[in-house]
Amino acid sequence: MSSFLVTGASRGFGLALVRQLVSLPATDVSTVFAATRGPSAEIDELAKNSSGRVVAVKLDVANEASAKQAATEVEAKLEGRGLDVLINNAGICQYAPDGVKSMDNLTESFNINVLGVHWVTRAFLPLLQKGNLKKVANISTSLASITQARAAHYLPGPAYKISKAAMNALTMQYALDHEKEGFSFIALCPGWLKTDLGGGDMADLTPEEGAKASLDIIFTPGQKYNGQMPKVFVKGWENAKGPNVYDGTNVPW
Amino acid sequence: MSSFLVTGASRGFGLALVRQLVSLPATDVSTVFAATRGPSAEIDELAKNSSGRVVAVKLDVANEASAKQAATEVEAKLEGRGLDVLINNAGICQYAPDGVKSMDNLTESFNINVLGVHWVTRAFLPLLQKGNLKKVANISTSLASITQARAAHYLPGPAYKISKAAMNALTMQYALDHEKEGFSFIALCPGWLKTDLGGGDMADLTPEEGAKASLDIIFTPGQKYNGQMPKVFVKGWENAKGPNVYDGTNVPW
Repeated sequence: MSSFLVTGASRGFGLALVRQLVSLPATDVSTVFAATRGPSAEIDELAKNSSGRVVAVKLDVANEASAKQAATEVEAKLEGRGLDVLINNAGICQYAPDGVKSMDNLTESFNINVLGVHWVTRAFLPLLQKGNLKKVANISTSLASITQARAAHYLPGPAYKISKAAMNALTMQYALDHEKEGFSFIALCPGWLKTDLGGGDMADLTPEEGAKASLDIIFTPGQKYNGQMPKVFVKGWENAKGPNVYDGTNVPW
Repeated sequence: MSSFLVTGASRGFGLALVRQLVSLPATDVSTVFAATRGPSAEIDELAKNSSGRVVAVKLDVANEASAKQAATEVEAKLEGRGLDVLINNAGICQYAPDGVKSMDNLTESFNINVLGVHWVTRAFLPLLQKGNLKKVANISTSLASITQARAAHYLPGPAYKISKAAMNALTMQYALDHEKEGFSFIALCPGWLKTDLGGGDMADLTPEEGAKASLDIIFTPGQKYNGQMPKVFVKGWENAKGPNVYDGTNVPW
């Protein structure tokens, strides 16, 4: 009987997470708050056919007032119960084709990928403190690993890499501050996904595979992943040759 | 006969760097461009007594137009020569006494500590490409290490830690992009210094000790430190007990 909130739920990985969650028994997943910046026909359709288990929420993560308003709405729907899991999935991947010196989009990436996670997390923190699971998954990427930056240098997305590294640092601050309350703040790497933000058909995993494997991490009992940056575990990819091995291990910061 | 530009030169570590540089023989250090946001009596005094070796430059790092204007001025002073070393020292350390959830200053920290380094670096990159040493030192801190975040949790400066982690990621992007041109982009940790930004008298090292030890790293020939985060080496501190060991090793990201 757990409740979830997923940001960036209108498409790609966020939509796959909502679909995966609502496919689980209602005894496990009671309510999925599907947060989107604008109207979403897919979420409206899911909500209509979910017997109230999927609830659409309007939320622009880059706007703190919007995050607070969304938290007020969700609080009313929860009728005194807490929120169990927050998945900060909304994000942006921006490019700078002529290298970091040509990067003019760092502020926008930062506003959505870092400040957005901060605004949403602190708006929902009181509800999460009343929840049972106390999990916050911030969707990250191994491209954000400074340690492994050389391996990711081929991809001309410095604003994405830098802002997600900052998000990882933010995740660690929340993890340390709220560890004693039983929280797990996780910088979760769902893999290279066949989504618009990801690599389309070139990528490794379907959004459904990424969502299922990410929920395996989120549903892991206890605080094993607090302040960690785990990759998903996907059967068949745990011994893959090449850079993308989905073996469930932690990515170095 | 090398030329240097130091940002945030009006006080603390930046001022100590300028003083240390100008104390070296003019055959080693020809010109020190001392960049400050506002007027600085100390820099004016140094400039007056330096036989032209210290040149005051107006530069607000958080303003890209100001960075470009400063680069134009420095280019004119260099009369066709390149700039050898850029030290991105200007920075801000902000606190959030009630933990990361109370953090309201991340944007300001980010604008100065991350975007500021980006604006200044790319404005001066053409001059640095004409220089001989090709060193860019971005002043960092072991507090920015996500790997070691637990050891730094006692210090309530999440915006400082997060923005400096992002600056480290930015440093790595420049390091990888410009490695083949012979550059060294260094996330340099000068130690815990007795400055206003640092810990005052509680801190470990005087700004002069930090400046001298930092220049040892910057003057190291070759590209050993490109894309690295070295701590300074300070005699007597290399085997110190406690968290702050200045043994010249790299801090993990």
